[in-house]
Amino acid sequence: MQIQDVFSAYKDDLRQVEKCISDNVISEIKLIPEVAHHLIDSGGKRFRPLLLLICARLCEFRRNNRFPMATVMEFLHTATLLHDDVIDQASMRRGKTSSNQIYGNAISILVGDFLCFKAFTLMTGIGNLDILKLISEMGDIMSEGEVFQLTKCGDINLTTKEYFSIIEKKTAVLISASCAAGAILGCAPQEKINALAQFGKNAGMAFQITDDVLDYTAQGKDFGKSIGKDLEEGKITLPLIFALKQSTEEEKNAIREIIARKKSSQKSAREILKLIKKYNGIDSSLETAAQYISKAKAQLNVFSDCPEKDHLNAVAQYILSRNI
Amino acid sequence: MQIQDVFSAYKDDLRQVEKCISDNVISEIKLIPEVAHHLIDSGGKRFRPLLLLICARLCEFRRNNRFPMATVMEFLHTATLLHDDVIDQASMRRGKTSSNQIYGNAISILVGDFLCFKAFTLMTGIGNLDILKLISEMGDIMSEGEVFQLTKCGDINLTTKEYFSIIEKKTAVLISASCAAGAILGCAPQEKINALAQFGKNAGMAFQITDDVLDYTAQGKDFGKSIGKDLEEGKITLPLIFALKQSTEEEKNAIREIIARKKSSQKSAREILKLIKKYNGIDSSLETAAQYISKAKAQLNVFSDCPEKDHLNAVAQYILSRNI
Repeated sequence: MQIQDVFSAYKDDLRQVEKCISDNVISEIKLIPEVAHHLIDSGGKRFRPLLLLICARLCEFRRNNRFPMATVMEFLHTATLLHDDVIDQASMRRGKTSSNQIYGNAISILVGDFLCFKAFTLMTGIGNLDILKLISEMGDIMSEGEVFQLTKCGDINLTTKEYFSIIEKKTAVLISASCAAGAILGCAPQEKINALAQFGKNAGMAFQITDDVLDYTAQGKDFGKSIGKDLEEGKITLPLIFALKQSTEEEKNAIREIIARKKSSQKSAREILKLIKKYNGIDSSLETAAQYISKAKAQLNVFSDCPEKDHLNAVAQYILSRNI
Repeated sequence: MQIQDVFSAYKDDLRQVEKCISDNVISEIKLIPEVAHHLIDSGGKRFRPLLLLICARLCEFRRNNRFPMATVMEFLHTATLLHDDVIDQASMRRGKTSSNQIYGNAISILVGDFLCFKAFTLMTGIGNLDILKLISEMGDIMSEGEVFQLTKCGDINLTTKEYFSIIEKKTAVLISASCAAGAILGCAPQEKINALAQFGKNAGMAFQITDDVLDYTAQGKDFGKSIGKDLEEGKITLPLIFALKQSTEEEKNAIREIIARKKSSQKSAREILKLIKKYNGIDSSLETAAQYISKAKAQLNVFSDCPEKDHLNAVAQYILSRNI
């Protein structure tokens, strides 16, 4: 089964989510929906809503509350992107000029805040305290991950363990919560909630690792940002960590120098990429991602075979193969 | 009754709130409590927690949940200050160097986010969906107020109505929610919840108006910021609106020029203040604040006489007389 088949199976549900998104990005202050739509309508895949919809269906939840809940996950994701782009002083997002560039930092921060509170408003409408708790705690962990990442900015001594901790906090917990929330809506037994939370966490780890690989390998026009953007922002990611582990002192110094320069050139990006390839950084990272995907899939053993299980497996498989 | 008497009457409760604040500003990422404490421990009056504690007691709620709920209000207030200081590119807050200056914009944004999610985590512990709904909707209104204020930056045609809308959204709703949440905790009848919400809203309007007056009249060392800071940030507030209404074209042009310059000098601050005084901007603003305080006090008629009612009246009175 291909990822397109999964999206097709949830086409009607996803249309309802789009309607719910539109219905809730409203404000008498017109600039707020304008900025929110700029990012929300910029071709995001609705990956988190999709996972929520699959997990809800897997846990036999068919009520309409799944649409606002999927909207919550997209709003929180969008809010973090808005804040991240201010933090990273980004200029592009999904191939478009980023909101902070067009509307300024202040508006981007505030529209992020707005979407975050709107997500909580939607959850109070759903009225499930377990979900509210899950999402509140998730939010704190995500902020922690972002702060931790900042404190490690440009630090070439970043360990694999620290890297995994950062990506778990900043990325995997939101994907995990998307899966868990679907199960909680369905009043699934704790064992199944945990299994889907773990599925999401492991899939999320793989998702961020492949994202970090794409930062070095993707073509600008497909991936929406220029190559080596992470390094330019001082973000040391797995491909480089693998390379650094085996680099000579001389090579390490060259990397240090490129990071210190901040503004990376095409030339320095190529130089780093050469080192990463020399030490197999891309393949090793993809191997690590594959291990996380295996762990994710193994979590699904608690469920009997059914289309939804196939859907989750297909999503997991897609994470490994996307855009490469 | 003086405001000190009110604080004395809630000394033990406020100590519990301080403990709850400390217990919850924790994270394995050490920078987060450091930044949060920098602002939280900088001499804030705990005005919103105090109001919550009074209203809870007024509605006969004596259970320990009032402490985390008061903490929620302080966390949300602190989160907005952290984001506001990034937005305004502030350099001072409560007489100290502001967090954005010391730790940078990125960390200030993220610690604001952290405190906001922590507030929701605390509320899920309290487990009252009405309160969660109140606070979520409040958050959206606050973001709307801040965005609205930004869109009106430097606009000398700002109407009184627009000004009132801005300060209601950015300031009064949080003070209103602090009062209402105390009543909701106490399972007060809707009439009393509404009365306290309206008390808080009107008191909050007066609070922001006196704050805006203080921006023109306070001594730097007492108030923690320099005089005319609002105008420097392009914020047109009530004293100036009153003056603008009666100014000649020539005077309006002078004000326009000072605003356009952005960096206001001592000289231009004095010039503006002279105009404001000429047209009675300070006194008219304080009169408006006094009207809001009267409206606030009138809301308390639904309550029988009791010490807590006196406390609220004393707080309301204090708002009018503080630091002037």
